[in-house]
Amino acid sequence: QEDGNNIKLTALPYYNYGKGVGLTSPDSLFQFNIRFRMQNRISYLKDEDKDAAYEAAIRRLRLRFDGYVGMPEIVYAIQLSFSERDVASGNKEERINIIRDAIVFYRPDKNWNIGFGQTKLPGNRQRINSSGALQLTDRSINNAMFNIDRDFGLHTYYLNEKTNQFSYNIKTAISTGEGRNWTQESDNGLAYTGKVELFPFGAFEGNGSLFEGDITREQKPKLMLSGAYHFNEKARRTRGTVGTLLFDQKNISSLLLDAMFKYQGWSFQAAYLSRMNNDPISVNPDDNTETTYVFKGMGTDAQLSYLFPTNYEVVGRYSYQQPHSDIENLHPTTNQLSLGVSKYIWEHALKLQAEVTNTQLDYLNNNDQSNWYVRFQVEIGI
Amino acid sequence: QEDGNNIKLTALPYYNYGKGVGLTSPDSLFQFNIRFRMQNRISYLKDEDKDAAYEAAIRRLRLRFDGYVGMPEIVYAIQLSFSERDVASGNKEERINIIRDAIVFYRPDKNWNIGFGQTKLPGNRQRINSSGALQLTDRSINNAMFNIDRDFGLHTYYLNEKTNQFSYNIKTAISTGEGRNWTQESDNGLAYTGKVELFPFGAFEGNGSLFEGDITREQKPKLMLSGAYHFNEKARRTRGTVGTLLFDQKNISSLLLDAMFKYQGWSFQAAYLSRMNNDPISVNPDDNTETTYVFKGMGTDAQLSYLFPTNYEVVGRYSYQQPHSDIENLHPTTNQLSLGVSKYIWEHALKLQAEVTNTQLDYLNNNDQSNWYVRFQVEIGI
Amino acid sequence: QEDGNNIKLTALPYYNYGKGVGLTSPDSLFQFNIRFRMQNRISYLKDEDKDAAYEAAIRRLRLRFDGYVGMPEIVYAIQLSFSERDVASGNKEERINIIRDAIVFYRPDKNWNIGFGQTKLPGNRQRINSSGALQLTDRSINNAMFNIDRDFGLHTYYLNEKTNQFSYNIKTAISTGEGRNWTQESDNGLAYTGKVELFPFGAFEGNGSLFEGDITREQKPKLMLSGAYHFNEKARRTRGTVGTLLFDQKNISSLLLDAMFKYQGWSFQAAYLSRMNNDPISVNPDDNTETTYVFKGMGTDAQLSYLFPTNYEVVGRYSYQQPHSDIENLHPTTNQLSLGVSKYIWEHALKLQAEVTNTQLDYLNNNDQSNWYVRFQVEIGI
Repeated sequence: QEDGNNIKLTALPYYNYGKGVGLTSPDSLFQFNIRFRMQNRISYLKDEDKDAAYEAAIRRLRLRFDGYVGMPEIVYAIQLSFSERDVASGNKEERINIIRDAIVFYRPDKNWNIGFGQTKLPGNRQRINSSGALQLTDRSINNAMFNIDRDFGLHTYYLNEKTNQFSYNIKTAISTGEGRNWTQESDNGLAYTGKVELFPFGAFEGNGSLFEGDITREQKPKLMLSGAYHFNEKARRTRGTVGTLLFDQKNISSLLLDAMFKYQGWSFQAAYLSRMNNDPISVNPDDNTETTYVFKGMGTDAQLSYLFPTNYEVVGRYSYQQPHSDIENLHPTTNQLSLGVSKYIWEHALKLQAEVTNTQLDYLNNNDQSNWYVRFQVEIGI
Repeated sequence: QEDGNNIKLTALPYYNYGKGVGLTSPDSLFQFNIRFRMQNRISYLKDEDKDAAYEAAIRRLRLRFDGYVGMPEIVYAIQLSFSERDVASGNKEERINIIRDAIVFYRPDKNWNIGFGQTKLPGNRQRINSSGALQLTDRSINNAMFNIDRDFGLHTYYLNEKTNQFSYNIKTAISTGEGRNWTQESDNGLAYTGKVELFPFGAFEGNGSLFEGDITREQKPKLMLSGAYHFNEKARRTRGTVGTLLFDQKNISSLLLDAMFKYQGWSFQAAYLSRMNNDPISVNPDDNTETTYVFKGMGTDAQLSYLFPTNYEVVGRYSYQQPHSDIENLHPTTNQLSLGVSKYIWEHALKLQAEVTNTQLDYLNNNDQSNWYVRFQVEIGI
Repeated sequence: QEDGNNIKLTALPYYNYGKGVGLTSPDSLFQFNIRFRMQNRISYLKDEDKDAAYEAAIRRLRLRFDGYVGMPEIVYAIQLSFSERDVASGNKEERINIIRDAIVFYRPDKNWNIGFGQTKLPGNRQRINSSGALQLTDRSINNAMFNIDRDFGLHTYYLNEKTNQFSYNIKTAISTGEGRNWTQESDNGLAYTGKVELFPFGAFEGNGSLFEGDITREQKPKLMLSGAYHFNEKARRTRGTVGTLLFDQKNISSLLLDAMFKYQGWSFQAAYLSRMNNDPISVNPDDNTETTYVFKGMGTDAQLSYLFPTNYEVVGRYSYQQPHSDIENLHPTTNQLSLGVSKYIWEHALKLQAEVTNTQLDYLNNNDQSNWYVRFQVEIGI
């Protein structure tokens, strides 16, 4: 399961290229690998009702440490984030959010992978992908709205990927349901997540299901079909594990379906994401004019790309997002179309990305809006 | 003083197992060691007056860097913390608290150790122990209330531990008295700390006074007796170097006594902790209905354990905490009893811990309360 | 351009001594160097109208990671800061400020250096100096008030330093103008910076223009003259890229001139810094009694030192700061005189510094004030 000092962690698909840098203790009791990843970008924004603007920042800057303690069956993985948007993102009630992953795995054999700690839940494919292994500069609007993110708990995987034959993975998690680095009021409502991944024609080359684009130029067609269901009992936040606080606790469930196909430089991905809840509106008990709501609804993504032999890639993505009728007066229906060109210098470890995106927001009162951005991004990491 | 790349820092007893990982520069001018430590836990809480709840989080995640610059006599040690509770713990007036230790030591010979910077004051034994070298999942309620924590200043130690004969350490510090990472208003009231550690039968095996439990299975009985006195002039916080802000400045003193005994797998520890002050109530000068107070009082801990040859350990701890009569209407008298079972896989570097704890809070108005928790914890580090 | 594992980054003059510690991947695709730097200090403050006080803290604690990905022409540099004053400094509207530098450089040949990301703008000399390569314990009051700090953007340098002959560097940047880690409202007003550095007698020994003091004891006289001009369109903060928020956006420009001379242990530096703007007062549109202002004005610094053969150095600095007449009723005219003694143990990588400083604040109403501080500082790093 080790290749050089790269521990293959299907639970933590941090994209690797080459052999990375690492340290092993003189007595071989410890292994300690260090990685970093940085994403610098500039965007030109033109929203329909605003002046044009430039937005430029370090979108992501991550350090990752992984390795084993005592024996290769006991693996740890830590990921820290430092960029302003990563640290302060989401819920302002949380003071800080440096830790993304902090988990210890026990891997008794090549099939079982049992983790205790904080990492991504087995949710939609694009969220499980490292943000450093995307084809466009960021994930889709549906991922942003419906993904089930990271959580703290017991993560149990049965992995059974085989070359050139039907194979599958089963991934489950029992977690707090409150999301990353939660230290506020606790409750006895947990979250339960289950996912099945099917590979009808066998596993992708080079863990290809963990990154976007057909960088390995699959010689045979490869397909992944996956479905995840997540039930979050007594959730406290507008999007379950993420978002601002609700005034009361809600039971929230999610259904996340994905398909991924790659063949000879072509890649196609499709996704369906949804969130369900019976009474999405949450009213402040002290002031019933103040409300918030569970974002209930569904969305679909479709993404197609071709990688030229020069390692230039063209990619297009279309996303449709539909809030449920319970909240359709609170949130627009959204269509988004993105076109991108990428140059892979060292696969996803060093790439240049350009993207143009149009977003159509359709409000219930016919007050529609069309926004544009053009973005240039450099991704670099080891 | 070096063992492999492990610099023995009695001032910073970060628990080590094996040789760790480190880098030495090609010209041997620098040594740079990297360590991490992670503590993941889940607790089931049942407070008498509340619904049951689960609390699960990364309790601690630390990175440590140490080594020397120029020559082995000049040693640095840095410890960073990233977990939500570490970063934001204590005083909300502080914005962030990533740095725990950041200190440079000059060690001219094997006895003297002169440090300038921020680290733990020479206070009670359990606080000086790394939280990664505890037998139960956390320190006692008395440690939480009475410990003198970390501070910035001049730390001077005279170390004189010898094998199999009476020996002693003397540790002193002159520090700001305001605690970690203080950048608010300063004053001319410093804090003075002095501590004596006696080893009547000689030093413990393998720096055994720096971790709990008799992991080394001492072949001869070993005892440590220690006493520390701390005087914090013009203190600004409710617990001296930690806690929320007082409305006025107070002179606070602490007396901290400890005993530790280990022999053939048995370990016994006892502690007496106290805080003294003449006028503990602090009144807001702008609104005399608003008050806060110095936590004045005393507590005792007793802890007994046996480590089986299988490296399973059973441990019990009893703690009693008594607020001073000046504040007894503001704070309950507390009794706490904990029972734990630990499995040491690689000593304290990798262990599994289970604990059940009952806490009895006795309020002055006879409104007593009995709270329970059950906790499972994994500690992993290098 | 590489010396051992030290990548020479004129854009990021982090002071190095010796060969540092670094990792290169087994396949030589990656290089990853780690450095740290810590600055611990204690100051005795005696302000004219206040009681004496001690201030003691970790002023700076930095981690730096640099190296290349894929090929030595593609270099990254990351600097993180963790001390309370670094993290929370400046603008309270920003939640956190851990990242200082995060930039990728493309260096196609020895002359061109093209960076995309966040780093120091090519501004005044003392700001470009690492704070670890100063002669006194901190930069001047004029640097604090007029420097143009770090910003995110495209940094393009043409470097042409030669030994013993006239040479020059040209440095430019196009950046957002809002400063470090800005994620608030964006606009289309960018900042444009240009700088010329002249070396009439050739480049300094050992990159001597990047640190203060003549540690290399130049055998021939060496001189640097430099001038930088910075125009920040639609700036949002009181000092352009730093400071609290203005109520409206302003166009701000800066002129920064520097001279540095070193010869046989002597070093002399002089600086002129200024900020210009046509209407410095910014009024809250919702409450016209609330105002803030662009700090418009000028300042000069002069600094002289001699390094004895024992590596003790004496240094003096005089600074004069004059607010523009538009804001002279809001801010005092300031004179500051500092005298320092330093002992360089391993050049700037390990040094002890002592300083006494007197600051004269002259308010328009003749209410003058004279403040003193004495400071001791240890700088240690690799």
